[in-house]
Amino acid sequence: MVIDRLIERIEQMKNPTAVGLDTSFDYLPDELRAGVSDLRGAAKAIVAFNKAIVDQIADIVPCVKVQIAYYEMYGLDGLQAFAETVRYAKEKGLIVITDAKRNDIGATAECYAKTFLGETAVGEAKFCAFDSDFLTVNAYLGSDGIKPFLGWMEKRDKGIFVLVKTSNPSGAELQDQKLENGKTVYEYMGSLVEQWGRASVGIYGYSAVGAVVGATHPVQAEILRREMPHTFFLIPGYGAQGGTADDLKVCFDKNGRGGIVNSSRGILCAYRKDDYAGLRFDEAARRACLAMKNDLNRAING
Amino acid sequence: MVIDRLIERIEQMKNPTAVGLDTSFDYLPDELRAGVSDLRGAAKAIVAFNKAIVDQIADIVPCVKVQIAYYEMYGLDGLQAFAETVRYAKEKGLIVITDAKRNDIGATAECYAKTFLGETAVGEAKFCAFDSDFLTVNAYLGSDGIKPFLGWMEKRDKGIFVLVKTSNPSGAELQDQKLENGKTVYEYMGSLVEQWGRASVGIYGYSAVGAVVGATHPVQAEILRREMPHTFFLIPGYGAQGGTADDLKVCFDKNGRGGIVNSSRGILCAYRKDDYAGLRFDEAARRACLAMKNDLNRAING
Repeated sequence: MVIDRLIERIEQMKNPTAVGLDTSFDYLPDELRAGVSDLRGAAKAIVAFNKAIVDQIADIVPCVKVQIAYYEMYGLDGLQAFAETVRYAKEKGLIVITDAKRNDIGATAECYAKTFLGETAVGEAKFCAFDSDFLTVNAYLGSDGIKPFLGWMEKRDKGIFVLVKTSNPSGAELQDQKLENGKTVYEYMGSLVEQWGRASVGIYGYSAVGAVVGATHPVQAEILRREMPHTFFLIPGYGAQGGTADDLKVCFDKNGRGGIVNSSRGILCAYRKDDYAGLRFDEAARRACLAMKNDLNRAING
Repeated sequence: MVIDRLIERIEQMKNPTAVGLDTSFDYLPDELRAGVSDLRGAAKAIVAFNKAIVDQIADIVPCVKVQIAYYEMYGLDGLQAFAETVRYAKEKGLIVITDAKRNDIGATAECYAKTFLGETAVGEAKFCAFDSDFLTVNAYLGSDGIKPFLGWMEKRDKGIFVLVKTSNPSGAELQDQKLENGKTVYEYMGSLVEQWGRASVGIYGYSAVGAVVGATHPVQAEILRREMPHTFFLIPGYGAQGGTADDLKVCFDKNGRGGIVNSSRGILCAYRKDDYAGLRFDEAARRACLAMKNDLNRAING
């Protein structure tokens, strides 16, 4: 199962990191941006940047998280860059989480499930448009918007991460509201996620229905870790957003398992930091990944 | 303002309908599907179908809602079909709502806002990848995930519809939960939407920050109409999902304003109904639009 493979790759590499390929054209070094003045040029430069990063990290990082919004804004050229990035990362052995936060009612959620996890049929032929290992989803619409994803997960060995407690400050506006029964909205969402995952628990006790739980909210993350014993966490908010390794260690169980931590800008733009002065952008990214690995291991297993 | 233009078109045409171009390849008549065996062929057939529908309805319907999930599942070819559909509908004078339910934290929501409402800069050049009049968004992540949309709305005269009370049965799981203060999650979300709309109230008293409120929940819709006096409703769930004109009339104010009702399958697949036997698919769609118009007017203004 995909969740078991993710956990095994994390343990082989001793590195619970997902590198976020949220590659804005603005993040690229001058030499890749020079002379580019249209969407196609920008998209090609982004793919070149991503491939160089993937080449540098594929042996030290188990997973990439590709944020589709950063590609959609470049239109069809951007989406082609997205597709190439996903394909290249998979070829290099990385597990790919597509971060798209898709959501809709049943029949339409089925279309999104086909797009990223399943298959679209045209006559006898079948295609997966943007074939990923995991997809992030938003469950404001409840179970019938989630079931189509569960169906394709089972058929094609895929997984999802459902938004529970997001890393941004305003996430609290709805998510921290208290319900009549004394629980918060995020805890209630967490309980739904545990239910949706019941049918896909793997050999390490974690299901293929994961949860997004921000590194920036250690108090809430500790509650969720306790209440969601079978749910693997995708943990954004480390680094640029202010979450530290010590903040997020509560997301991990006593075996040091249970989550994967995303960093995007901190890796992609490492070459701009004084620490990595003089290094090429991809070399700086590798060095930043190794520093992050050490920082996480110190906090989680130290 | 775009919300005023939408209201004026509805009144000129005496028709508060948005035709949903949720065009699955399976919805197409045999003659358009014959011989198609790949994504590109499917996408081209979908565009041909959509253009024929648009030609038949542009003089009687103010607006189309294009559900991007139905295009994403055909990959890059599908997204090209999406872009062509949006462009063609706008050329024919229709207001275009892109139904994409996008959502993310601030910096990433900014990318989505650029994609559908704003502009992506590459050097000196600026592009809007999928330029729409309105976009549906999901606000589980709170204000900082919404503000980027508000910024582009103001700059480029655009609007959004925020999910409040969705039409699907499981929407109730989270949305109908009661908070400590006795209000439901959907009412709380409604109060946020009213706040987000304060800066964009047009001449008819409705703001460019609308809400999605399902036709299938008349009791809740009546509460929301009262609590959200400045919020225009996008109303899904009419027809195939079971909502009737009498159910949804509570979404409208005493002047017969305040909402637009979506129908997708009921229009696109009208040619399969006995009522329209012998008509071409696009002629059947026009006839179904006129029947829906009469049904809505009878209930709302009758």
